[in-house]
Amino acid sequence: MAPPTPRRVVTVDLKKKPGEQMQPLHNRWHPEIPPVAEVKSGEVFTIEMLDWTGGAIKDDNSAVDIKILDLSIVHYLSGPIKVTDADGIPAKPGDLLAVEICNLGPLPGDEWGFTAIYDRENGGGFLTDHFPNATKAIWYFEGIYAYSPHIPGVRFPGLTHPGVIGTAPSMELLTIWNERERALEETGLHSLKLCEVLHARPLANLPSTKGCVLGKIQDGTPEWEKIAREAARTVPGRENGGNCDIKNLSRGSKVYLPVFVEGANLSTGDMHFSQGDGEVAFCGAIEMSGFLELKCEIIRDGMKQYLTPMGPTPLHVNPIFEIGPVEPRFSEWLVFEGISVDESGRQHFLDASVAYKRAVLNAIDYISKFGYTKEQVYLLLSCCPCEGRISGIVDCPNALATLAVPTAIFDQDIRPKANKVPAGPRVVRYPGIPQCPYEGNLPTTKNPGATL
Amino acid sequence: MAPPTPRRVVTVDLKKKPGEQMQPLHNRWHPEIPPVAEVKSGEVFTIEMLDWTGGAIKDDNSAVDIKILDLSIVHYLSGPIKVTDADGIPAKPGDLLAVEICNLGPLPGDEWGFTAIYDRENGGGFLTDHFPNATKAIWYFEGIYAYSPHIPGVRFPGLTHPGVIGTAPSMELLTIWNERERALEETGLHSLKLCEVLHARPLANLPSTKGCVLGKIQDGTPEWEKIAREAARTVPGRENGGNCDIKNLSRGSKVYLPVFVEGANLSTGDMHFSQGDGEVAFCGAIEMSGFLELKCEIIRDGMKQYLTPMGPTPLHVNPIFEIGPVEPRFSEWLVFEGISVDESGRQHFLDASVAYKRAVLNAIDYISKFGYTKEQVYLLLSCCPCEGRISGIVDCPNALATLAVPTAIFDQDIRPKANKVPAGPRVVRYPGIPQCPYEGNLPTTKNPGATL
Amino acid sequence: MAPPTPRRVVTVDLKKKPGEQMQPLHNRWHPEIPPVAEVKSGEVFTIEMLDWTGGAIKDDNSAVDIKILDLSIVHYLSGPIKVTDADGIPAKPGDLLAVEICNLGPLPGDEWGFTAIYDRENGGGFLTDHFPNATKAIWYFEGIYAYSPHIPGVRFPGLTHPGVIGTAPSMELLTIWNERERALEETGLHSLKLCEVLHARPLANLPSTKGCVLGKIQDGTPEWEKIAREAARTVPGRENGGNCDIKNLSRGSKVYLPVFVEGANLSTGDMHFSQGDGEVAFCGAIEMSGFLELKCEIIRDGMKQYLTPMGPTPLHVNPIFEIGPVEPRFSEWLVFEGISVDESGRQHFLDASVAYKRAVLNAIDYISKFGYTKEQVYLLLSCCPCEGRISGIVDCPNALATLAVPTAIFDQDIRPKANKVPAGPRVVRYPGIPQCPYEGNLPTTKNPGATL
Amino acid sequence: MAPPTPRRVVTVDLKKKPGEQMQPLHNRWHPEIPPVAEVKSGEVFTIEMLDWTGGAIKDDNSAVDIKILDLSIVHYLSGPIKVTDADGIPAKPGDLLAVEICNLGPLPGDEWGFTAIYDRENGGGFLTDHFPNATKAIWYFEGIYAYSPHIPGVRFPGLTHPGVIGTAPSMELLTIWNERERALEETGLHSLKLCEVLHARPLANLPSTKGCVLGKIQDGTPEWEKIAREAARTVPGRENGGNCDIKNLSRGSKVYLPVFVEGANLSTGDMHFSQGDGEVAFCGAIEMSGFLELKCEIIRDGMKQYLTPMGPTPLHVNPIFEIGPVEPRFSEWLVFEGISVDESGRQHFLDASVAYKRAVLNAIDYISKFGYTKEQVYLLLSCCPCEGRISGIVDCPNALATLAVPTAIFDQDIRPKANKVPAGPRVVRYPGIPQCPYEGNLPTTKNPGATL
Repeated sequence: MAPPTPRRVVTVDLKKKPGEQMQPLHNRWHPEIPPVAEVKSGEVFTIEMLDWTGGAIKDDNSAVDIKILDLSIVHYLSGPIKVTDADGIPAKPGDLLAVEICNLGPLPGDEWGFTAIYDRENGGGFLTDHFPNATKAIWYFEGIYAYSPHIPGVRFPGLTHPGVIGTAPSMELLTIWNERERALEETGLHSLKLCEVLHARPLANLPSTKGCVLGKIQDGTPEWEKIAREAARTVPGRENGGNCDIKNLSRGSKVYLPVFVEGANLSTGDMHFSQGDGEVAFCGAIEMSGFLELKCEIIRDGMKQYLTPMGPTPLHVNPIFEIGPVEPRFSEWLVFEGISVDESGRQHFLDASVAYKRAVLNAIDYISKFGYTKEQVYLLLSCCPCEGRISGIVDCPNALATLAVPTAIFDQDIRPKANKVPAGPRVVRYPGIPQCPYEGNLPTTKNPGATL
Repeated sequence: MAPPTPRRVVTVDLKKKPGEQMQPLHNRWHPEIPPVAEVKSGEVFTIEMLDWTGGAIKDDNSAVDIKILDLSIVHYLSGPIKVTDADGIPAKPGDLLAVEICNLGPLPGDEWGFTAIYDRENGGGFLTDHFPNATKAIWYFEGIYAYSPHIPGVRFPGLTHPGVIGTAPSMELLTIWNERERALEETGLHSLKLCEVLHARPLANLPSTKGCVLGKIQDGTPEWEKIAREAARTVPGRENGGNCDIKNLSRGSKVYLPVFVEGANLSTGDMHFSQGDGEVAFCGAIEMSGFLELKCEIIRDGMKQYLTPMGPTPLHVNPIFEIGPVEPRFSEWLVFEGISVDESGRQHFLDASVAYKRAVLNAIDYISKFGYTKEQVYLLLSCCPCEGRISGIVDCPNALATLAVPTAIFDQDIRPKANKVPAGPRVVRYPGIPQCPYEGNLPTTKNPGATL
Repeated sequence: MAPPTPRRVVTVDLKKKPGEQMQPLHNRWHPEIPPVAEVKSGEVFTIEMLDWTGGAIKDDNSAVDIKILDLSIVHYLSGPIKVTDADGIPAKPGDLLAVEICNLGPLPGDEWGFTAIYDRENGGGFLTDHFPNATKAIWYFEGIYAYSPHIPGVRFPGLTHPGVIGTAPSMELLTIWNERERALEETGLHSLKLCEVLHARPLANLPSTKGCVLGKIQDGTPEWEKIAREAARTVPGRENGGNCDIKNLSRGSKVYLPVFVEGANLSTGDMHFSQGDGEVAFCGAIEMSGFLELKCEIIRDGMKQYLTPMGPTPLHVNPIFEIGPVEPRFSEWLVFEGISVDESGRQHFLDASVAYKRAVLNAIDYISKFGYTKEQVYLLLSCCPCEGRISGIVDCPNALATLAVPTAIFDQDIRPKANKVPAGPRVVRYPGIPQCPYEGNLPTTKNPGATL
Repeated sequence: MAPPTPRRVVTVDLKKKPGEQMQPLHNRWHPEIPPVAEVKSGEVFTIEMLDWTGGAIKDDNSAVDIKILDLSIVHYLSGPIKVTDADGIPAKPGDLLAVEICNLGPLPGDEWGFTAIYDRENGGGFLTDHFPNATKAIWYFEGIYAYSPHIPGVRFPGLTHPGVIGTAPSMELLTIWNERERALEETGLHSLKLCEVLHARPLANLPSTKGCVLGKIQDGTPEWEKIAREAARTVPGRENGGNCDIKNLSRGSKVYLPVFVEGANLSTGDMHFSQGDGEVAFCGAIEMSGFLELKCEIIRDGMKQYLTPMGPTPLHVNPIFEIGPVEPRFSEWLVFEGISVDESGRQHFLDASVAYKRAVLNAIDYISKFGYTKEQVYLLLSCCPCEGRISGIVDCPNALATLAVPTAIFDQDIRPKANKVPAGPRVVRYPGIPQCPYEGNLPTTKNPGATL
């Protein structure tokens, strides 16, 4: 009978730099990045990947590496993989590529990860106006569990998933991306009210040759120059999937990706041991190297059959997915809510982003009463299996968002009690959570209410 | 031993109009609306409530009642209930009121509900620019299950909950609400970019004497005039809880409400047999009359101990809650995603509301392929136990939201398959889902992609 | 449109004795007990029922009522209900009757129940040789939750279900029952090794006119005399369903019952607010009065299509069922195991009953360390939502059974810890759990190991 | 910081025979089998293991290897492992050893397993009187999923676990085992009524030098001879844990094992990709090679604190365990029940083994209607994640057992429907499931009802 061991189509060597890997990596989306491997429909195969920084962040007690991290290299991806059917005929534009995640995990010998808050001048994050300092927490894995020397008193099973999984865009789709994101970058700051509340900058990351890595395309060649100037950054999720950061895309789940180029050209990377909905700290999952076992199926003409474009072109579609059967199971949750009133007390109109910001801020303030610094809780809520919900989006003017935190991850009972919050920390705060001073001059958001 | 039957502190008579009930109802928030009953900490008691319209919507095949519904009466609430401790000392401002929902359900003899899309000129909703017509679906209950003659082929267990539960605001808090909402109403339409995408209007519902009902305060008295001009509308959720529309606030869950006035003055209403995250159609849950069995506990000084205000005053807080142990359990979900690019193809910055709108539109388009009209699916996603998540809120410029739909609610397999979508509807569309023509002149949002 | 309120086909009056109810009850299985009501396929209807004792057990602090309980009256059932299809044609022998439990619960105004250990001379139970005293615990309901003044420190949501639900047997099936049970009673005690380990007596309850209640059949008539002498006791579950005591047969579940007589003649009773797998204390669930909302469907010729008889006749079949979607959800369980070695150290061969006895004894001993008497734990494990599993049934000579207890029902952490079991009871034992002395002269089973 | 990669304390080489492994294996329980490795409390370490047969069963289409399998070699275990605390002081008799299963899985490169029915003359199984032929099914793994070329139409996620995990017995405990099992073997066949129903033979497996492997003890030495004559077979689970076959002992779970010898001497083996409760076919799980990542903690004096012996000595205890958080999640189950009436129609007294036999037979008959042979279903129910429950153990004379099968593992809807069972197999039966003829002369159990 047939040998069932998955073929390892991409291998990485943790001892080598990103540029030295046997199968070259890439960190941009472009139709002309050539495949590094080919798989058949129905075949189970393995892809290995570096952590998204390619090893730039170390297992140590300093946040300096976070503070100075070169973000132009986001994200080192493995692939592209060309997908064909059983007869060798490649996936075609208009098909759907059903990708089942049969298994995944950390790379053996590399069972650790990191969660970080970027410096406000270098990346920022959802709450960067509150927490401008570069900060880092290291996590160690004990099989399915993670714990951190920097955030004591919590331990939880991972809902491991790839942050990035997507197909290559066609030139037409790539142009759509570049144009709409350029328009935002050029006019957004002055026209978007949300910018007054969400302080992450830049608004968009436009193509740049700096830090660009294009797989088999040789650096510095004219071809490289052309592609590097066109290729989309991998920061946001888009029509091709990409950096979806959907925390439930774990073992046994399935993603249906639209195909835009012949062969589909599937790429993946940015493995997360665990992440909370929203990945609020931005470098916010438990970031790690890892492997994926995948199985692809081509649904011919599936885009037309199953996806309805919404927008100016037939390319304006989104992937769909199915959740797998082995997610960690929690039965008790403490839920924090936020409404679309910002920290200054100003009313916003059905703004779920503002509401979610408030829900997260409320959760941080609450949990920090149990012996944590706010930065510790911000990191924790970014990477633990918490759920962010849009609970109400019609009750004008307030959007209402909730953040549900599983109580079993704590070694103490964090529910409100008629007797007071336990006096004296049951959890001893780690005196030196790795952190760098913020040296910029942007103002932080004040919370007058906190000190009243 | 003590008789365990819960005392029925508010009773409603379904044969009587809202204004004729024994214990008068109210539909505004104001500190001076007098309690209609008093309960002690630890006591299990029952509150009955009309559906939020007070019986204005009928179990029939016409959507005219929805089209002409007087929205100034939103929502008929039961209460306020004064809460004291075992010694008779009332809850005090600064306390937390822990309210456990021991049980709830439809009122016996009234086991049906409705879900509706408002006319775009009279209420609107999350997708009003796509679906401007008043539309209605009736649901019948078979114990824990609901089914609709207007949306055949689906049946699901209810995650029943009160849409509105809250404490009375203090005058100081009421003033904060009125000022911030007035500011939005006055300037928002011109300053908020989100208004280009979310077409619900008005932006906010300011206090109005029209339709105002104030419980024991006699209509037309000077006191009534004064309070009616000040009292907040109950449409949005706010610091006091209120219209949270949190679908998981069901049997066995617990909500911790801040107390702003002596006695807490707890009110509740707007019972939902079931609702999806977001309640997207606005009149979007399965709306019904019902009863609640509650148990209150006073956590003295709990606001200070557990809640950190975020905003200009110590009143800028939000409730927290715990999820109960008997939610319906689904193991298979189909998940739709949306990014913050609107229907015209324009890029928005980390806007979760736009992303969620896209996710819901994607889900509607997908599911309608299985034998439904889009209005049927819009109604269904508004009221079935689907989950709306903020999956990514940091990957500039795209917020990424997801909508997860449990596949077990359908009598057919709606997952994508390599063979085509079943030809011919397995579900026969109901030829006459109750609907009224839209007679206004606002443009609907076009989707050029759909017809390509 | 059609009124959705379920028709109440059987009503009980809690103030009246079992013999005084409007629709007469019955406590035997016989084909000639006439139906008291008729329902149509697809119709949702309500049946009310007394607790199985018909009100003999009181909400008080004495176990005398348990000790002297007349067990000849087991169980007062509501029905039989004749079931027809939409055209009025009754269910026929050979059909399957699919009964959906749409809803159920305690009767309003009667929100309490009891769990009891019978005296060893009057009923006994699974561990009667260890716990021969009549003992009682009262439970009060707070909506979905139950708590007991007699077993402090626990509170749990109910997985409410009818202990008894079944169709009437045909005369042929009834004869099979009576013959095989008589054979056991006559020869079993001397031939069954299991009797040395399981001390419950009598081995079987044969038909008896004492205590017999036969619905519309008038007491003392010749017809009554004849039927009473033939009619099967309702104690064991059999081919017709009956006293299955399947704790998961709760809201939203469905049972497929074989039909043996025209009209099916469905009867039900013995409502349990909650029960553990095995119902080990015998009067072991939280026994209560209650109501069921049911919906029946007739699967014509379904016995042949779906059930394969196993035994000498085509009547040797068993019902099947589907579990409902709203069971209480627990994520953490402590699991106790037992092997088929009895308390004297003797080895039994693959005996799951012996193994389960050991698992339950182990659980009692363990949990009693946390501040409980063993009787309290025996009662608790009999009625809380614990799961009894046959884990291994092939590893000769040991059957291995497990008992999984959800840890969330306790107000303390009962898991083993490296530091010792908490010194001093966090739970204060109730000084007077209602109990009667055992006045018989059967020896109890000694556990020499416990005192070493 | 510390390297988190688990130390690999036992390695196996799949290309080598059991007797050629670097760390010698063992297949008996005895206090004098020397440890092959030592670990510290708190350390995460890896143990590899062969499948229990040491590679005797091949990935092919013949059941001959099953038919002739030498059962004297049951089971090849890895270990013993000596456990010490952080200071190097070993676990002591009377301690509890808490073993957390941090992770586990198949060995890379060996992602397949087998499930088999033994020949009735060589092993048998729970239903050997119905299915006497040696039969085999091969399973292939796709990450978390398994599928079989021999049982088409099913695929399910594994609930992977070690069948055997235990500590070494003391000489005193070993003597207890040998004596009680010898007593059974000598007298059981004539005195046990259950033997008329459960046809597995021999009743017990007494110590034998045939096939005996004792780790570092050299074969054929006087020491080996002595130990081999005393050492207990590993077939049944006992006081030390051992062959518990508890299917939920999976990722993230914890087992608390009593310690009987200095160092605890932990051994493990018999990895199962998946198993149903009861493991009814005996070689009934999906048997495979694999690895475990474990973490041990010593609870000093924990036996006395937490375990109460039940039996003649303080050694008569059983392990306890906690279930992990990542079990596969199913929401829909079809449940089959059985009562303690055997296939001949004879009544047994509260016999859960007989009742479970009937429940499994009922499930086999039912599911085989959907296009399977009975042997295929017997194998399937032995290895898929089905749950076997003791539902009622007090309703004299019937014990009632249930078997719950998750419906999502099938590619067709197996629930009863008003329209008939689908005509024509949607699943094409594999024409040649590997099977050998039964050549013995024991009678099979007839089911007269099946052909009526």
